[in-house]
Amino acid sequence: MNPDPLATPEVLREREARDRSGLFYLDGLGLVRRAIRSRRMPVATVVCPELLRHSSTRDFAEHRRSGGFPVCQVAEREFRHLSRRAAPDGIGAILRQDAGSLPRPATAGEIWIGFDMIRSPGNLGTCLRTAAAAGARGAVFLGEGCDPYDPGALRAAMGATFRLRLARAEERVFAAWRRRTRALVVGASSRARRDYRAVRPGRGPIVVMMGDERKGLTRRQRRLCDLLVRIPMARGSDSLNVGVAAGLMLYAVRAD
Amino acid sequence: MNPDPLATPEVLREREARDRSGLFYLDGLGLVRRAIRSRRMPVATVVCPELLRHSSTRDFAEHRRSGGFPVCQVAEREFRHLSRRAAPDGIGAILRQDAGSLPRPATAGEIWIGFDMIRSPGNLGTCLRTAAAAGARGAVFLGEGCDPYDPGALRAAMGATFRLRLARAEERVFAAWRRRTRALVVGASSRARRDYRAVRPGRGPIVVMMGDERKGLTRRQRRLCDLLVRIPMARGSDSLNVGVAAGLMLYAVRAD
Repeated sequence: MNPDPLATPEVLREREARDRSGLFYLDGLGLVRRAIRSRRMPVATVVCPELLRHSSTRDFAEHRRSGGFPVCQVAEREFRHLSRRAAPDGIGAILRQDAGSLPRPATAGEIWIGFDMIRSPGNLGTCLRTAAAAGARGAVFLGEGCDPYDPGALRAAMGATFRLRLARAEERVFAAWRRRTRALVVGASSRARRDYRAVRPGRGPIVVMMGDERKGLTRRQRRLCDLLVRIPMARGSDSLNVGVAAGLMLYAVRAD
Repeated sequence: MNPDPLATPEVLREREARDRSGLFYLDGLGLVRRAIRSRRMPVATVVCPELLRHSSTRDFAEHRRSGGFPVCQVAEREFRHLSRRAAPDGIGAILRQDAGSLPRPATAGEIWIGFDMIRSPGNLGTCLRTAAAAGARGAVFLGEGCDPYDPGALRAAMGATFRLRLARAEERVFAAWRRRTRALVVGASSRARRDYRAVRPGRGPIVVMMGDERKGLTRRQRRLCDLLVRIPMARGSDSLNVGVAAGLMLYAVRAD
Protein backbone atom coordinates (compact mmCIF):
# COMPACT_ATOMS: atom_id res chain seq x y z
CA MET A 1 0.00 0.00 0.00
CA ASN A 2 2.25 2.78 -1.24
CA PRO A 3 -0.01 5.21 -3.09
CA ASP A 4 1.76 7.11 -5.83
CA PRO A 5 1.99 10.79 -4.77
CA LEU A 6 1.79 11.85 -8.41
CA ALA A 7 -1.58 10.18 -8.71
CA THR A 8 -2.78 10.88 -5.15
CA PRO A 9 -0.95 14.01 -4.01
CA GLU A 10 -2.96 14.26 -0.77
CA VAL A 11 -0.75 11.55 0.74
CA LEU A 12 1.95 14.23 0.83
CA ARG A 13 0.00 16.03 3.56
CA GLU A 14 1.47 13.36 5.85
CA ARG A 15 5.11 13.40 6.79
CA GLU A 16 5.54 9.68 6.40
CA ALA A 17 4.63 9.79 2.71
CA ARG A 18 6.86 12.83 2.22
CA ASP A 19 9.81 11.09 3.83
CA ARG A 20 9.24 7.87 1.88
CA SER A 21 8.81 9.51 -1.50
CA GLY A 22 11.27 12.38 -1.05
CA LEU A 23 8.57 14.65 -2.50
CA PHE A 24 6.39 17.40 -1.04
CA TYR A 25 3.28 19.31 -2.00
CA LEU A 26 3.32 23.08 -2.37
CA ASP A 27 0.04 24.97 -2.40
CA GLY A 28 -0.93 28.11 -4.24
CA LEU A 29 0.29 30.02 -7.27
CA GLY A 30 2.32 32.49 -5.20
CA LEU A 31 4.53 29.85 -3.60
CA VAL A 32 4.79 27.74 -6.76
CA ARG A 33 6.02 30.79 -8.64
CA ARG A 34 8.56 31.55 -5.91
CA ALA A 35 9.84 27.97 -6.12
CA ILE A 36 10.27 28.17 -9.89
CA ARG A 37 11.94 31.58 -9.59
CA SER A 38 14.44 29.91 -7.24
CA ARG A 39 15.02 27.21 -9.92
CA ARG A 40 13.10 24.58 -8.02
CA MET A 41 11.30 22.84 -10.85
CA PRO A 42 8.09 20.96 -10.03
CA VAL A 43 7.97 17.23 -10.70
CA ALA A 44 4.36 17.95 -11.56
CA THR A 45 2.04 20.93 -11.47
CA VAL A 46 -1.26 20.22 -9.72
CA VAL A 47 -4.26 21.92 -11.27
CA CYS A 48 -7.92 22.03 -10.34
CA PRO A 49 -9.74 23.56 -13.33
CA GLU A 50 -12.94 24.36 -11.37
CA LEU A 51 -10.99 26.56 -8.97
CA LEU A 52 -9.08 28.65 -11.50
CA ARG A 53 -11.03 31.86 -10.92
CA HIS A 54 -8.36 34.38 -11.92
CA SER A 55 -6.64 34.95 -15.21
CA SER A 56 -3.27 34.57 -13.44
CA THR A 57 -4.00 31.01 -12.34
CA ARG A 58 -5.66 30.10 -15.67
CA ASP A 59 -2.69 31.48 -17.60
CA PHE A 60 -0.25 29.63 -15.40
CA ALA A 61 -2.08 26.31 -15.84
CA GLU A 62 -2.24 26.86 -19.59
CA HIS A 63 1.45 27.77 -19.73
CA ARG A 64 2.47 24.62 -17.85
CA ARG A 65 0.32 22.45 -20.10
CA SER A 66 1.41 24.00 -23.37
CA GLY A 67 5.04 23.95 -22.24
CA GLY A 68 4.83 20.18 -21.97
CA PHE A 69 5.39 20.10 -18.22
CA PRO A 70 3.71 17.24 -16.34
CA VAL A 71 0.32 18.35 -15.04
CA CYS A 72 -1.71 16.40 -12.53
CA GLN A 73 -5.38 17.36 -12.69
CA VAL A 74 -7.55 16.89 -9.61
CA ALA A 75 -11.23 17.42 -8.86
CA GLU A 76 -12.39 20.30 -6.66
CA ARG A 77 -13.20 18.12 -3.67
CA GLU A 78 -9.75 16.56 -3.69
CA PHE A 79 -8.00 19.84 -4.26
CA ARG A 80 -9.77 21.44 -1.30
CA HIS A 81 -8.76 18.50 0.83
CA LEU A 82 -5.19 18.82 -0.40
CA SER A 83 -4.96 22.59 0.02
CA ARG A 84 -6.91 22.97 3.28
CA ARG A 85 -6.94 26.72 2.75
CA ALA A 86 -10.20 28.59 3.03
CA ALA A 87 -9.87 29.91 -0.52
CA PRO A 88 -7.65 27.60 -2.58
CA ASP A 89 -6.64 29.04 -5.95
CA GLY A 90 -6.54 25.74 -7.85
CA ILE A 91 -2.76 25.67 -8.36
CA GLY A 92 -0.23 23.50 -6.56
CA ALA A 93 2.93 21.59 -7.33
CA ILE A 94 4.78 18.48 -6.34
CA LEU A 95 8.48 19.06 -5.84
CA ARG A 96 11.45 17.03 -4.83
CA GLN A 97 12.85 17.64 -1.35
CA ASP A 98 16.41 18.78 -1.45
CA ALA A 99 17.63 18.91 2.12
CA GLY A 100 21.14 17.56 1.72
CA SER A 101 24.31 17.49 3.74
CA LEU A 102 26.28 20.43 5.08
CA PRO A 103 28.49 22.11 2.47
CA ARG A 104 32.17 21.25 2.66
CA PRO A 105 33.63 24.72 2.45
CA ALA A 106 31.80 27.42 4.32
CA THR A 107 32.94 31.01 4.06
CA ALA A 108 33.73 33.25 6.99
CA GLY A 109 30.75 35.18 8.26
CA GLU A 110 28.10 33.26 6.36
CA ILE A 111 25.04 32.68 8.53
CA TRP A 112 23.15 29.46 9.21
CA ILE A 113 20.19 28.81 11.43
CA GLY A 114 20.17 25.52 13.31
CA PHE A 115 17.26 23.54 14.75
CA ASP A 116 16.78 20.43 16.73
CA MET A 117 13.08 20.59 17.47
CA ILE A 118 10.46 23.24 16.84
CA ARG A 119 6.91 22.26 17.74
CA SER A 120 4.92 24.52 15.47
CA PRO A 121 5.40 24.30 11.69
CA GLY A 122 4.31 27.95 11.50
CA ASN A 123 7.12 28.98 13.84
CA LEU A 124 9.62 26.94 11.84
CA GLY A 125 8.48 28.63 8.63
CA THR A 126 8.72 32.08 10.23
CA CYS A 127 12.29 31.31 11.34
CA LEU A 128 13.21 30.29 7.78
CA ARG A 129 11.55 33.39 6.32
CA THR A 130 13.51 35.56 8.75
CA ALA A 131 16.78 33.72 8.09
CA ALA A 132 16.43 34.29 4.35
CA ALA A 133 15.65 37.99 4.90
CA ALA A 134 18.70 38.32 7.15
CA GLY A 135 20.81 36.89 4.33
CA ALA A 136 21.48 33.46 5.81
CA ARG A 137 22.94 30.82 3.54
CA GLY A 138 21.04 27.92 4.96
CA ALA A 139 19.31 26.01 7.71
CA VAL A 140 20.60 22.88 9.38
CA PHE A 141 18.34 20.32 11.05
CA LEU A 142 20.06 18.25 13.69
CA GLY A 143 17.43 15.64 14.29
CA GLU A 144 14.25 14.53 12.63
CA GLY A 145 12.35 16.85 14.95
CA CYS A 146 11.14 19.26 12.34
CA ASP A 147 10.09 19.10 8.76
CA PRO A 148 10.53 22.17 6.55
CA TYR A 149 8.27 20.52 3.97
CA ASP A 150 5.26 20.51 6.28
CA PRO A 151 2.44 22.50 4.60
CA GLY A 152 2.27 24.96 7.53
CA ALA A 153 6.03 25.52 7.48
CA LEU A 154 6.03 26.06 3.71
CA ARG A 155 3.23 28.60 4.00
CA ALA A 156 4.86 30.57 6.82
CA ALA A 157 8.26 30.51 5.10
CA MET A 158 6.75 32.35 2.11
CA GLY A 159 9.28 30.96 -0.35
CA ALA A 160 12.35 31.20 1.90
CA THR A 161 12.48 27.38 1.83
CA PHE A 162 13.74 27.67 -1.75
CA ARG A 163 16.28 30.41 -1.19
CA LEU A 164 18.06 28.69 1.69
CA ARG A 165 20.28 25.65 1.51
CA LEU A 166 18.64 23.04 3.74
CA ALA A 167 20.85 20.47 5.40
CA ARG A 168 20.23 17.53 7.71
CA ALA A 169 23.06 16.42 9.94
CA GLU A 170 23.45 14.05 12.82
CA GLU A 171 24.97 15.56 15.88
CA ARG A 172 28.45 14.08 15.35
CA VAL A 173 28.46 15.12 11.69
CA PHE A 174 27.51 18.64 12.68
CA ALA A 175 30.19 18.67 15.38
CA ALA A 176 32.82 17.61 12.84
CA TRP A 177 31.64 20.26 10.34
CA ARG A 178 31.78 22.89 13.06
CA ARG A 179 35.41 22.01 13.87
CA ARG A 180 36.48 21.79 10.25
CA THR A 181 34.86 25.07 9.21
CA ARG A 182 35.73 26.85 12.47
CA ALA A 183 32.07 27.70 12.84
CA LEU A 184 30.87 29.85 15.71
CA VAL A 185 27.69 28.29 17.08
CA VAL A 186 25.59 30.74 19.10
CA GLY A 187 22.54 29.90 21.19
CA ALA A 188 20.25 32.00 23.36
CA SER A 189 19.85 31.18 27.03
CA SER A 190 18.23 33.20 29.79
CA ARG A 191 21.11 32.17 32.06
CA ALA A 192 23.84 33.51 29.75
CA ARG A 193 25.70 36.69 30.66
CA ARG A 194 26.83 37.98 27.31
CA ASP A 195 24.41 40.23 25.44
CA TYR A 196 23.22 38.85 22.10
CA ARG A 197 24.47 41.95 20.31
CA ALA A 198 28.04 41.31 21.47
CA VAL A 199 28.72 38.40 19.09
CA ARG A 200 31.67 39.04 16.79
CA PRO A 201 32.12 36.82 13.74
CA GLY A 202 35.17 34.58 13.78
CA ARG A 203 37.01 32.87 10.97
CA GLY A 204 34.19 30.59 9.97
CA PRO A 205 30.42 30.57 9.48
CA ILE A 206 28.04 31.57 12.26
CA VAL A 207 25.27 29.21 13.26
CA VAL A 208 22.37 30.64 15.24
CA MET A 209 21.02 27.66 17.16
CA MET A 210 17.31 27.81 18.02
CA GLY A 211 15.66 25.82 20.78
CA ASP A 212 12.09 24.64 21.03
CA GLU A 213 9.20 26.93 21.94
CA ARG A 214 8.79 25.81 25.52
CA LYS A 215 12.11 24.68 26.84
CA GLY A 216 14.63 26.45 24.66
CA LEU A 217 17.89 24.72 23.78
CA THR A 218 18.27 21.09 24.77
CA ARG A 219 21.36 20.00 26.70
CA ARG A 220 22.56 18.37 23.47
CA GLN A 221 22.20 21.65 21.59
CA ARG A 222 23.93 23.63 24.33
CA ARG A 223 26.89 21.28 24.13
CA LEU A 224 27.20 22.15 20.45
CA CYS A 225 27.25 25.91 21.15
CA ASP A 226 30.48 27.89 21.35
CA LEU A 227 28.71 30.82 22.88
CA LEU A 228 25.51 31.35 24.85
CA VAL A 229 23.99 34.80 24.77
CA ARG A 230 21.11 36.50 26.48
CA ILE A 231 18.35 38.62 24.99
CA PRO A 232 17.57 41.16 27.72
CA MET A 233 13.96 41.31 28.85
CA ALA A 234 11.96 43.57 31.11
CA ARG A 235 10.92 42.30 34.51
CA GLY A 236 7.90 40.01 34.31
CA SER A 237 8.86 38.68 30.85
CA ASP A 238 10.69 35.41 30.65
CA SER A 239 10.58 34.46 27.00
CA LEU A 240 10.00 35.60 23.45
CA ASN A 241 8.26 33.91 20.56
CA VAL A 242 10.85 31.69 18.86
CA GLY A 243 10.51 33.52 15.54
CA VAL A 244 11.07 36.87 17.25
CA ALA A 245 14.12 35.52 19.12
CA ALA A 246 15.50 34.13 15.84
CA GLY A 247 14.99 37.53 14.19
CA LEU A 248 16.88 39.37 16.92
CA MET A 249 19.76 36.88 16.89
CA LEU A 250 20.03 36.68 13.10
CA TYR A 251 19.95 40.44 12.60
CA ALA A 252 22.50 40.89 15.38
CA VAL A 253 25.07 38.59 13.76
CA ARG A 254 24.40 39.88 10.26
CA ALA A 255 27.29 41.85 8.80
CA ASP A 256 26.33 45.13 7.11
CA MET B 1 -31.47 39.18 24.01
CA ASN B 2 -28.39 40.19 25.94
CA PRO B 3 -27.14 37.04 27.62
CA ASP B 4 -25.31 37.71 30.87
CA PRO B 5 -21.61 36.86 30.36
CA LEU B 6 -21.34 35.85 34.01
CA ALA B 7 -23.98 33.20 33.48
CA THR B 8 -23.04 32.31 29.88
CA PRO B 9 -19.35 33.14 29.49
CA GLU B 10 -19.15 31.61 26.01
CA VAL B 11 -20.75 34.75 24.60
CA LEU B 12 -17.38 36.40 25.33
CA ARG B 13 -15.82 34.36 22.54
CA GLU B 14 -17.45 36.91 20.26
CA ARG B 15 -16.14 40.42 20.01
CA GLU B 16 -19.56 42.00 19.99
CA ALA B 17 -20.38 40.61 23.43
CA ARG B 18 -16.96 41.64 24.69
CA ASP B 19 -17.41 45.18 23.45
CA ARG B 20 -20.94 45.44 24.82
CA SER B 21 -20.14 44.09 28.26
CA GLY B 22 -16.63 45.48 28.64
CA LEU B 23 -15.58 42.02 29.85
CA PHE B 24 -13.42 39.26 28.39
CA TYR B 25 -12.74 35.60 29.00
CA LEU B 26 -9.27 34.36 29.85
CA ASP B 27 -8.52 30.67 29.52
CA GLY B 28 -6.20 28.49 31.56
CA LEU B 29 -4.59 28.60 34.97
CA GLY B 30 -1.28 29.96 33.65
CA LEU B 31 -2.80 33.10 32.16
CA VAL B 32 -5.27 33.63 35.01
CA ARG B 33 -2.37 33.54 37.44
CA ARG B 34 -0.41 36.01 35.36
CA ALA B 35 -3.39 38.35 35.32
CA ILE B 36 -3.77 38.19 39.11
CA ARG B 37 -0.02 38.68 39.57
CA SER B 38 -0.39 41.88 37.52
CA ARG B 39 -3.21 42.94 39.88
CA ARG B 40 -5.92 42.27 37.34
CA MET B 41 -8.61 40.80 39.56
CA PRO B 42 -11.21 38.52 37.92
CA VAL B 43 -14.84 39.54 38.06
CA ALA B 44 -15.41 35.80 38.33
CA THR B 45 -13.32 32.68 38.20
CA VAL B 46 -14.67 30.06 35.80
CA VAL B 47 -14.26 26.49 36.99
CA CYS B 48 -15.12 23.17 35.41
CA PRO B 49 -14.79 20.57 38.20
CA GLU B 50 -14.65 17.56 35.81
CA LEU B 51 -11.55 18.99 34.12
CA LEU B 52 -9.50 19.75 37.22
CA ARG B 53 -6.99 16.93 36.72
CA HIS B 54 -3.99 18.47 38.51
CA SER B 55 -3.53 19.46 42.10
CA SER B 56 -2.52 22.96 40.93
CA THR B 57 -5.89 23.58 39.26
CA ARG B 58 -7.84 21.92 42.08
CA ASP B 59 -6.00 23.98 44.69
CA PHE B 60 -6.59 27.16 42.74
CA ALA B 61 -10.33 26.49 42.41
CA GLU B 62 -10.55 25.67 46.10
CA HIS B 63 -8.59 28.79 47.03
CA ARG B 64 -10.89 31.03 45.00
CA ARG B 65 -13.98 29.43 46.50
CA SER B 66 -12.80 29.52 50.10
CA GLY B 67 -11.53 33.08 49.66
CA GLY B 68 -15.07 34.15 48.86
CA PHE B 69 -14.30 35.20 45.27
CA PRO B 70 -17.14 34.81 42.78
CA VAL B 71 -16.90 31.45 41.04
CA CYS B 72 -18.88 30.53 37.98
CA GLN B 73 -19.12 26.75 37.59
CA VAL B 74 -19.67 25.29 34.14
CA ALA B 75 -20.16 21.78 32.78
CA GLU B 76 -17.43 20.04 30.80
CA ARG B 77 -19.15 20.39 27.45
CA GLU B 78 -19.60 24.12 27.92
CA PHE B 79 -16.09 24.60 29.22
CA ARG B 80 -14.59 22.81 26.21
CA HIS B 81 -16.65 25.00 23.94
CA LEU B 82 -15.48 28.08 25.83
CA SER B 83 -11.81 27.10 25.96
CA ARG B 84 -11.44 25.59 22.47
CA ARG B 85 -8.05 24.26 23.47
CA ALA B 86 -7.24 20.62 22.85
CA ALA B 87 -6.55 20.02 26.53
CA PRO B 88 -8.42 22.60 28.64
CA ASP B 89 -7.37 22.62 32.30
CA GLY B 90 -10.77 23.56 33.74
CA ILE B 91 -9.79 27.04 34.91
CA GLY B 92 -10.71 30.35 33.34
CA ALA B 93 -11.67 33.84 34.41
CA ILE B 94 -13.86 36.72 33.39
CA LEU B 95 -12.09 40.06 33.66
CA ARG B 96 -12.91 43.63 32.96
CA GLN B 97 -11.29 45.19 29.88
CA ASP B 98 -9.15 48.13 30.77
CA ALA B 99 -8.02 49.69 27.53
CA GLY B 100 -8.31 53.37 28.38
CA SER B 101 -7.04 56.63 27.00
CA LEU B 102 -3.44 57.69 26.42
CA PRO B 103 -1.68 58.85 29.58
CA ARG B 104 -1.31 62.61 29.95
CA PRO B 105 2.33 62.80 30.88
CA ALA B 106 4.65 60.45 29.06
CA THR B 107 8.29 60.30 29.99
CA ALA B 108 11.17 60.70 27.58
CA GLY B 109 12.29 57.44 26.04
CA GLU B 110 9.34 55.35 27.15
CA ILE B 111 8.26 52.96 24.42
CA TRP B 112 4.82 52.34 22.99
CA ILE B 113 3.70 50.05 20.21
CA GLY B 114 0.96 51.37 17.94
CA PHE B 115 -1.51 49.48 15.77
CA ASP B 116 -4.23 50.32 13.35
CA MET B 117 -5.05 46.90 11.96
CA ILE B 118 -3.47 43.47 12.45
CA ARG B 119 -5.32 40.60 10.81
CA SER B 120 -4.20 37.70 12.95
CA PRO B 121 -4.95 37.74 16.70
CA GLY B 122 -1.90 35.50 17.17
CA ASN B 123 0.34 38.10 15.52
CA LEU B 124 -1.17 40.85 17.66
CA GLY B 125 -0.52 38.80 20.79
CA THR B 126 3.07 38.11 19.72
CA CYS B 127 3.63 41.84 19.19
CA LEU B 128 2.31 42.58 22.70
CA ARG B 129 4.44 39.82 24.21
CA THR B 130 7.50 41.25 22.48
CA ALA B 131 6.66 44.82 23.48
CA ALA B 132 6.42 43.83 27.15
CA ALA B 133 9.74 41.95 26.94
CA ALA B 134 11.37 45.00 25.33
CA GLY B 135 10.16 47.06 28.28
CA ALA B 136 7.42 49.02 26.51
CA ARG B 137 4.99 50.95 28.65
CA GLY B 138 1.96 50.31 26.55
CA ALA B 139 0.14 49.67 23.30
CA VAL B 140 -2.09 52.13 21.51
CA PHE B 141 -4.87 51.07 19.15
CA LEU B 142 -5.82 53.72 16.62
CA GLY B 143 -8.95 52.18 15.22
CA GLU B 144 -11.27 49.36 16.12
CA GLY B 145 -9.25 47.10 13.82
CA CYS B 146 -7.80 44.85 16.45
CA ASP B 147 -8.94 43.45 19.72
CA PRO B 148 -6.31 42.59 22.35
CA TYR B 149 -9.01 40.67 24.24
CA ASP B 150 -9.51 38.16 21.44
CA PRO B 151 -8.81 34.65 22.82
CA GLY B 152 -6.04 34.06 20.27
CA ALA B 153 -4.38 37.39 21.07
CA LEU B 154 -4.55 36.72 24.81
CA ARG B 155 -2.98 33.30 24.35
CA ALA B 156 -0.12 34.53 22.15
CA ALA B 157 0.54 37.53 24.45
CA MET B 158 1.24 35.12 27.32
CA GLY B 159 0.27 37.62 29.99
CA ALA B 160 1.84 40.71 28.38
CA THR B 161 -1.71 42.07 27.98
CA PHE B 162 -1.71 42.68 31.74
CA ARG B 163 1.72 44.23 32.01
CA LEU B 164 1.18 46.84 29.31
CA ARG B 165 -1.01 49.89 29.47
CA LEU B 166 -3.55 49.50 26.68
CA ALA B 167 -4.99 52.63 25.11
CA ARG B 168 -7.51 53.31 22.39
CA ALA B 169 -7.30 56.61 20.56
CA GLU B 170 -8.90 58.13 17.55
CA GLU B 171 -6.45 59.45 15.02
CA ARG B 172 -6.90 63.11 15.98
CA VAL B 173 -6.57 62.32 19.68
CA PHE B 174 -3.38 60.39 19.00
CA ALA B 175 -2.05 63.26 16.86
CA ALA B 176 -2.69 65.74 19.68
CA TRP B 177 -1.04 63.43 22.24
CA ARG B 178 1.95 63.05 19.94
CA ARG B 179 2.38 66.85 19.70
CA ARG B 180 1.85 67.44 23.38
CA THR B 181 4.25 64.73 24.56
CA ARG B 182 6.77 65.37 21.76
CA ALA B 183 6.50 61.72 20.84
CA LEU B 184 8.68 60.27 18.09
CA VAL B 185 6.50 57.98 15.98
CA VAL B 186 8.52 55.48 13.95
CA GLY B 187 7.19 53.16 11.26
CA ALA B 188 8.84 50.62 8.99
CA SER B 189 8.63 51.01 5.25
CA SER B 190 10.52 49.19 2.53
CA ARG B 191 10.86 52.51 0.71
CA ALA B 192 12.50 54.34 3.61
CA ARG B 193 16.20 55.12 3.47
CA ARG B 194 17.16 55.32 7.10
CA ASP B 195 18.18 52.08 8.79
CA TYR B 196 15.93 50.99 11.65
CA ARG B 197 18.91 50.93 14.03
CA ALA B 198 19.58 54.62 13.46
CA VAL B 199 16.64 55.90 15.52
CA ARG B 200 17.72 58.14 18.37
CA PRO B 201 15.22 58.90 21.15
CA GLY B 202 14.07 62.48 21.36
CA ARG B 203 12.51 64.41 24.23
CA GLY B 204 9.34 62.38 24.41
CA PRO B 205 8.09 58.82 24.19
CA ILE B 206 8.81 56.61 21.18
CA VAL B 207 5.93 54.92 19.40
CA VAL B 208 6.76 51.99 17.13
CA MET B 209 3.91 51.96 14.62
CA MET B 210 3.08 48.56 13.13
CA GLY B 211 1.21 48.03 9.90
CA ASP B 212 -0.92 45.10 8.85
CA GLU B 213 0.51 41.75 7.74
CA ARG B 214 -0.02 42.20 4.03
CA LYS B 215 0.14 45.86 3.20
CA GLY B 216 2.17 47.35 6.02
CA LEU B 217 1.40 50.86 7.22
CA THR B 218 -1.71 52.53 5.87
CA ARG B 219 -1.47 56.03 4.41
CA ARG B 220 -3.19 57.27 7.57
CA GLN B 221 -0.56 55.61 9.75
CA ARG B 222 2.31 56.93 7.64
CA ARG B 223 0.96 60.47 8.07
CA LEU B 224 1.21 59.98 11.83
CA CYS B 225 4.86 58.88 11.64
CA ASP B 226 7.73 61.28 12.28
CA LEU B 227 10.23 58.86 10.83
CA LEU B 228 10.10 55.96 8.41
CA VAL B 229 12.85 53.40 8.66
CA ARG B 230 13.89 50.37 6.70
CA ILE B 231 14.77 46.89 7.93
CA PRO B 232 17.40 45.69 5.45
CA MET B 233 16.66 42.41 3.71
CA ALA B 234 18.58 40.08 1.45
CA ARG B 235 17.70 39.95 -2.24
CA GLY B 236 14.60 37.87 -2.87
CA SER B 237 13.02 38.74 0.49
CA ASP B 238 10.48 41.51 0.60
CA SER B 239 8.91 41.23 4.02
CA LEU B 240 9.14 39.87 7.53
CA ASN B 241 6.51 38.42 9.80
CA VAL B 242 4.90 41.35 11.64
CA GLY B 243 5.93 39.99 15.06
CA VAL B 244 9.54 39.65 13.93
CA ALA B 245 9.54 43.18 12.48
CA ALA B 246 8.06 44.50 15.75
CA GLY B 247 10.78 42.69 17.70
CA LEU B 248 13.57 44.22 15.63
CA MET B 249 12.11 47.73 15.85
CA LEU B 250 11.32 47.55 19.58
CA TYR B 251 14.71 46.18 20.54
CA ALA B 252 16.40 48.77 18.34
CA VAL B 253 14.75 51.74 20.10
CA ARG B 254 15.13 50.22 23.55
CA ALA B 255 17.58 52.09 25.76
CA ASP B 256 19.98 49.89 27.70
